[in-house]
Amino acid sequence: MDNNDLVKKVLSGDKKTISKVITLVDNRDPTVNNIIDKLYPYTGRSQVVGITGPLGVGKSTLIGQMIKSWSKKGKKVAVIAIDPTSPFHGGAILGDRIRMQDCFLDENIFIRSIGTRGAYGGLSKSTDEITKVFDAAGYDIVLIETVGAGQVEVDIAKLAHTTIVVVVPGLGDVIQTIKAGMFEIPDIVVVNKSDLAGADQLVMDLETVLNLSHKKWKPPVLKTVSLKNEGIDDLIRVIEKHWNYQKEKGLLYEKETNKIREELLNLITDDLKTKILNEINKSGLLDLYTKKLISKEITPYIAKDEIIKEILKNKNIS
Amino acid sequence: MDNNDLVKKVLSGDKKTISKVITLVDNRDPTVNNIIDKLYPYTGRSQVVGITGPLGVGKSTLIGQMIKSWSKKGKKVAVIAIDPTSPFHGGAILGDRIRMQDCFLDENIFIRSIGTRGAYGGLSKSTDEITKVFDAAGYDIVLIETVGAGQVEVDIAKLAHTTIVVVVPGLGDVIQTIKAGMFEIPDIVVVNKSDLAGADQLVMDLETVLNLSHKKWKPPVLKTVSLKNEGIDDLIRVIEKHWNYQKEKGLLYEKETNKIREELLNLITDDLKTKILNEINKSGLLDLYTKKLISKEITPYIAKDEIIKEILKNKNIS
Repeated sequence: MDNNDLVKKVLSGDKKTISKVITLVDNRDPTVNNIIDKLYPYTGRSQVVGITGPLGVGKSTLIGQMIKSWSKKGKKVAVIAIDPTSPFHGGAILGDRIRMQDCFLDENIFIRSIGTRGAYGGLSKSTDEITKVFDAAGYDIVLIETVGAGQVEVDIAKLAHTTIVVVVPGLGDVIQTIKAGMFEIPDIVVVNKSDLAGADQLVMDLETVLNLSHKKWKPPVLKTVSLKNEGIDDLIRVIEKHWNYQKEKGLLYEKETNKIREELLNLITDDLKTKILNEINKSGLLDLYTKKLISKEITPYIAKDEIIKEILKNKNIS
Repeated sequence: MDNNDLVKKVLSGDKKTISKVITLVDNRDPTVNNIIDKLYPYTGRSQVVGITGPLGVGKSTLIGQMIKSWSKKGKKVAVIAIDPTSPFHGGAILGDRIRMQDCFLDENIFIRSIGTRGAYGGLSKSTDEITKVFDAAGYDIVLIETVGAGQVEVDIAKLAHTTIVVVVPGLGDVIQTIKAGMFEIPDIVVVNKSDLAGADQLVMDLETVLNLSHKKWKPPVLKTVSLKNEGIDDLIRVIEKHWNYQKEKGLLYEKETNKIREELLNLITDDLKTKILNEINKSGLLDLYTKKLISKEITPYIAKDEIIKEILKNKNIS
C-alpha cells in the first residue's frame, strides 16, 4: 500500500490502517512525514482532552466511564495512553486489570498506547502526530492519558484543548503538588473516589488554590466515583462547556496558532540539530575534546566554543 | 565579588558563596559559564547518588536518615531536591513537614532545592552544574532527589553514579512501573515502610524482575523502615559498595566519558539552537508559515523544509 492509499483508508476511518499508521509514527518511520503532510488538510476538528494524575487515582476506570458516556452521545473517541502504568499499555493490555475490553469491540472507540522511552521531545511529537491521525480519521474526542506531575505533563497539556487533573483524597500533599508543579495545567480538576473521607475538604482546598489562578476560566473542581459511575455525565458536560467557552472567546484560534508555531519551530530545530550532529560526528571533534575534558586540559564552555568555531568555519550561522 | 573570588570561596567550602553560585546556575545567569569553567579542574571526586520514587514513599524521611548515617562517618553531603513535592523544596522549607531542620545547621550538610519549571534540558544542565559546584567544594556525596517515573528520572539517572529507586508495599502496580519505565534505572532498589503487609512479596517480585536485567551489577533490593531508622546503615554500605565496584571494574571511567561527551554535545547543540533561533526570528519566516499552516495553504514538513532552505541559503550546514 503506498502513502496515498494509506491516507485514503485513514480518512475513511479504517481501524487497521489507522493502527498501522500510528505504529509508523511511534517508530519514527521516515514515511511518516509525507503521510502527516497528506492528512494535515483534514485535521482541526477533534477536541483534544488531556487527562493526568498520579498513580492510584483510578484514571483507567474513570476513562472507561467517560468513554461510555461519550459513546451514548454518539461520539467517536480515541484514547492515547502514554502512562506506562496504564492498563491500556503494552503488555498489560491482556491482563486482568482491563475493565474495558468491551470498549475495544466498539466501532466508535479506539484505544492505543504509545512508547514512553526515548527523548521526551520525540514523545511530544509522536503524540501530536497520532492526534492528527485520529483527527483526520474523524474522531470527535482524542483523549491523551499521562501520569504524574512533570515536564511531560506540562508539554502534553500544551497539545490539549482541555486538560483534566485527577486526584483522590488522602494521597500525599495534593495541594502542594498542584501549587509546585501543575498550578497552571488543569482546566478541570476531578476529585475521584469522592466517597472517601476528606473529599469535601480536598474540594474546598483545591477551589481556594485554583481561585488564585490568573486564567479567566476558573478550573471547576468536580467530584466523581468512577467505580459507581457517579459524576461522569457532569464531567462530560463540563468538558463540552470548556470547548464551547474557548470557541466563543476565540481562545481556540489563539491556542492553535501558538501550537502550530511551536510545532513548526520544533520540526525546524530537530532537523537542523540532526544536520549539525552529522557535521560534528564527521569532524571527530567530539571525541578529541571529550578526551581533553577528561584529562582536564580544557574546560567545558571553552571546549564548546572551540568546536562551534571549527564547525562554523566558512559558514555564516552566527 | 568577581568570578575569581567566587571560585576561591567555593573551593574553600564557604556555604554562603556556594548558595550564591547555585542561584546563578539556577537562573542561568550568563556569568555561570565562566565560573563552571574555573571550577571544572577541581571536580571529579564526589559520588553522585540519584534517589527517585513516586509520591508517598517517604523519600524525605529516608534521605534524612541517610544524611545522619553519612554524617556519623564524617562525610560531607549535599542534597539537590528537584522533586517539586519535596519538603526541602521552595516554600515548604519552613513548613511543618521538615523533619530535618537539624541538618541545615550541620556544617557538613547542604540542602538545596532547584526549579522544576522550564525546559527539561535546562533542568538536567542545571543539576549537572550544581553537582559540579558541590563537587569542587569538597562534598563527598551529592544526592539528587527526583519524583516519579519519567524522562526526567531517566536523564537525571545519567548524571548519577548510583541510582536508588524507592518503593513501598501497596502503592499501585510497582512491578509494572519498573518494567515499563524504569527497568534499567536502578542500581539499588529500596522497599521503604517494609513493616507494612506485602513487603516480603514485593521484595521477591522485584528480585525476580531485576534478575532479568542484562546489567552485570544485579540491583540489590533492600528493606528499610525510615521512620524507625531500620536498614539505613545497610543501604549506606551498599551505596559505597556500588561505588567501589564501579571503580574496580573501570566502569566509572566509562560512565564519566559518556557523560562528558553528552554534556559537551548538549552545550554545543544548545548554543547552536540559540543562534539558529535568532536567525529564524530575524527572518520573520516563522510567523509567515504559521499563518500558511493555519489556513492549510501548506503542510508541516514542507513548511519546515522551505524555512530551512531559506535560512541556510548561502550557508553550508547541510
